[in-house]
Amino acid sequence: MEPTALAFLAAGIGAGIVAIGAGVGIGRLAASAMEGSARQPEASGDIRTSMIIAAALIEGVALFGLVICILLALK
Amino acid sequence: MEPTALAFLAAGIGAGIVAIGAGVGIGRLAASAMEGSARQPEASGDIRTSMIIAAALIEGVALFGLVICILLALK
Amino acid sequence: MEPTALAFLAAGIGAGIVAIGAGVGIGRLAASAMEGSARQPEASGDIRTSMIIAAALIEGVALFGLVICILLALK
Amino acid sequence: MEPTALAFLAAGIGAGIVAIGAGVGIGRLAASAMEGSARQPEASGDIRTSMIIAAALIEGVALFGLVICILLALK
Amino acid sequence: MEPTALAFLAAGIGAGIVAIGAGVGIGRLAASAMEGSARQPEASGDIRTSMIIAAALIEGVALFGLVICILLALK
Amino acid sequence: MEPTALAFLAAGIGAGIVAIGAGVGIGRLAASAMEGSARQPEASGDIRTSMIIAAALIEGVALFGLVICILLALK
Amino acid sequence: MEPTALAFLAAGIGAGIVAIGAGVGIGRLAASAMEGSARQPEASGDIRTSMIIAAALIEGVALFGLVICILLALK
Amino acid sequence: MEPTALAFLAAGIGAGIVAIGAGVGIGRLAASAMEGSARQPEASGDIRTSMIIAAALIEGVALFGLVICILLALK
Amino acid sequence: MEPTALAFLAAGIGAGIVAIGAGVGIGRLAASAMEGSARQPEASGDIRTSMIIAAALIEGVALFGLVICILLALK
Amino acid sequence: MEPTALAFLAAGIGAGIVAIGAGVGIGRLAASAMEGSARQPEASGDIRTSMIIAAALIEGVALFGLVICILLALK
Amino acid sequence: MEPTALAFLAAGIGAGIVAIGAGVGIGRLAASAMEGSARQPEASGDIRTSMIIAAALIEGVALFGLVICILLALK
Amino acid sequence: MEPTALAFLAAGIGAGIVAIGAGVGIGRLAASAMEGSARQPEASGDIRTSMIIAAALIEGVALFGLVICILLALK
Amino acid sequence: MEPTALAFLAAGIGAGIVAIGAGVGIGRLAASAMEGSARQPEASGDIRTSMIIAAALIEGVALFGLVICILLALK
Amino acid sequence: MEPTALAFLAAGIGAGIVAIGAGVGIGRLAASAMEGSARQPEASGDIRTSMIIAAALIEGVALFGLVICILLALK
Repeated sequence: MEPTALAFLAAGIGAGIVAIGAGVGIGRLAASAMEGSARQPEASGDIRTSMIIAAALIEGVALFGLVICILLALK
Repeated sequence: MEPTALAFLAAGIGAGIVAIGAGVGIGRLAASAMEGSARQPEASGDIRTSMIIAAALIEGVALFGLVICILLALK
Repeated sequence: MEPTALAFLAAGIGAGIVAIGAGVGIGRLAASAMEGSARQPEASGDIRTSMIIAAALIEGVALFGLVICILLALK
Repeated sequence: MEPTALAFLAAGIGAGIVAIGAGVGIGRLAASAMEGSARQPEASGDIRTSMIIAAALIEGVALFGLVICILLALK
Repeated sequence: MEPTALAFLAAGIGAGIVAIGAGVGIGRLAASAMEGSARQPEASGDIRTSMIIAAALIEGVALFGLVICILLALK
Repeated sequence: MEPTALAFLAAGIGAGIVAIGAGVGIGRLAASAMEGSARQPEASGDIRTSMIIAAALIEGVALFGLVICILLALK
Repeated sequence: MEPTALAFLAAGIGAGIVAIGAGVGIGRLAASAMEGSARQPEASGDIRTSMIIAAALIEGVALFGLVICILLALK
Repeated sequence: MEPTALAFLAAGIGAGIVAIGAGVGIGRLAASAMEGSARQPEASGDIRTSMIIAAALIEGVALFGLVICILLALK
Repeated sequence: MEPTALAFLAAGIGAGIVAIGAGVGIGRLAASAMEGSARQPEASGDIRTSMIIAAALIEGVALFGLVICILLALK
Repeated sequence: MEPTALAFLAAGIGAGIVAIGAGVGIGRLAASAMEGSARQPEASGDIRTSMIIAAALIEGVALFGLVICILLALK
Repeated sequence: MEPTALAFLAAGIGAGIVAIGAGVGIGRLAASAMEGSARQPEASGDIRTSMIIAAALIEGVALFGLVICILLALK
Repeated sequence: MEPTALAFLAAGIGAGIVAIGAGVGIGRLAASAMEGSARQPEASGDIRTSMIIAAALIEGVALFGLVICILLALK
Repeated sequence: MEPTALAFLAAGIGAGIVAIGAGVGIGRLAASAMEGSARQPEASGDIRTSMIIAAALIEGVALFGLVICILLALK
Repeated sequence: MEPTALAFLAAGIGAGIVAIGAGVGIGRLAASAMEGSARQPEASGDIRTSMIIAAALIEGVALFGLVICILLALK
């Protein structure tokens, strides 16, 4: 088996798992952000700022992971 | 085994896992958005904006993942 | 083993996993939409609009995934 | 191993996983529809319409998946 | 290994997974139907109609899946 | 490996998974039926009718699955 | 590998999975039966009848599954 | 590999899974029995009778499964 | 591979799974017994009797399973 | 592969799974014992006695399992 | 493959699983101990004694398991 | 199989699992941060500071893990 | 395959699983410690002492496990 | 297969699992810290101190695990 075969396998499966990580994480925090913003409409701007900071931290890890996957897919 | 065989395998399974990630994430945050919008109908526009921002972050990761998968499927 | 063998395997399993993703995601958000619409019948139109937007985002990812699977199934 | 062997395997397992996806998704939203319709009997028609729209979205993905599986089963 | 060997494997395992999907889905919605019908006995007929519509959607997918499995079992 | 070997494997494992599906589904809906019937003793006959209809739908899928398994076990 | 080897494997594992199915299902409904019967002692006979009907449906599937397993174990 | 090798494997793993099934099932219903009997001490005898009937149904399936396992272990 | 090799494997893994079954089952019912006995100290003796009966049923299945495992370990 | 190789594998993995079983079981019942003893400090001695009886039942199964594992590790 | 190879594999994986068992068990009971001790500060000494007894039972099983693992690691 | 093949496999899968870890962790704590900040808007700055400290601890582990993965992807 | 190959595999995977065990355990008890300390600020010192004792028990098992892993990594 | 191949595999997968452990653990305790600090703003400094102590214990285990992984990645 050539090394590129497993690189392709890892690229596809890895991209899927990265998407699960991003989906679970951002989904959870955005859900709480929206519940909080429905409970306290006047704190809405403050909560959206926090939501974007935290989502950016997860997005950063996820995109870093996807870059590793695309590096492998292009081998 | 040729490398393209595993690339095909990764494309199909990976696309499925990406869809789970997007489904779990967007499903969760949209559920909270709708509960919040039922609890505070006047905050409905604000919540829908937040929902679309957060869903776009997940959608971006998911589509990036699907592009990796289609690259592999077309090898 | 020929590459098409694994492409067929990936097509079938992948289609199944895509359906789980769509089922979990749309099932969850539609459940909340219906609970919200039972709690606030007058916000019903607004909630149904949100439901269709969010479901469309998941449906888009799922159909994209199924297209990858059918490409593999027809190899 | 011939390619059709794995196609048969994928058809059976994939059909099963598709059924899980449809079961989880439709089961969840129909459960909420029925709870909502028991809580607000006068909103019952509106909720049933929403239920059928959302169930149709999942049913569509599931049937698309099953068609891929039957294509594989008939190879 | 002959192709029919994997077809037999897929038929048995697939039938089992289909049964899980139907069980989870119909079990969940029927549970809610019965709770709703205990909470609002006068909405009982309306709820049972909804229950049968939704269960039929899952039953349809499950029987389609079982037909694929029996096609494989008879190869 | 002869095809019948995998048919035997699928028969046993499949029968087990079918039993899980039936157990989860009927267990869940019967649990709700009994809770409902304890909360509203006068709606007890109506609930038991619903319980038997829904259980029959799951039982049908499960027995169909078991018939596939016994077909495989007798090969 | 002879076919009987996999038949033995399937018999043992399958019997275990059948027992999980029966345990989960009967355990769940009997738990609700006992909670209901503690909440409404005067509905106790009615609930016990329902419990035995529903448990019999699961027991039937489980024993059918075990018979398949013992057929395989005696090959 | 001789058939008895897989029979031994199935006997051990199967016995373990049977024990999980019995543990989950009896543990769950006995837990509810004890909670019910703490909430309604005067219904205690009635609940204990129900508990033993339901536990016997699970115990029967479990012992049947263990007999299959010991048949395999003694091959 | 000699048959005893898989017998040893099954003995160790099986013993572990049996311990999970016993732990989950007895842990759950004893937890409820203790909560019930804290809520109704005067029903404490009655609850402890029920706890020992139910735990004995699980213990019996678990020890039967362990005996199968030790038979395999001594082959 | 020599039989002792799989015996060593089973000893290590089995010991780990036994520890999970004991941890889950004793952890759960001791948690309830402590909550009960915080809610009813005067029933504390009675609860601790029950806790030690039930923990001993799990401990017995776990140590029996570990003895099987050490027998395998010393082969 | 030499037997020591699988012994090394079992030692590492087994040690990890033992740590999960200890973590789940002690984590759960210590969590309840601390909640109880926050709810009833004057029962704090009594609860800490119970916590250490129960944790010691899990710790004993875990260390026994780790000793088996280190025996395998030093082969 | 060359060592780099498995290095590529590990890089892709590992990056995906790292993303799950970061997503679960940061998603959970940011969710609580936003709920807390909606409940106590005046403690919002204090909570955001805590959120960033804790998220940084997880981000550090995740980036360290991704660096290991990219080292492997570039072998 | 040389024995050291599997020792390396076990070292890496084992270290990961140990970290899960420690994370789950310490995370859970520290979470309760902090909730308790927010509910009863004056019992804060007492709770922190309990937290460190219990965390040390888990930390001990985890470090013992990591030492086994590093022994394997250095073979 | 050379030993370094499995070392690379273990390094990547292990780093991912370590990140899950750290994410689950720190995520959980930081979530409780933030909820506690929103409920009792004046106990905020005390809770943050506890949070950092507990997170450091998990961080220590995680970094120790990552060091084992990087040792393997550099072989």
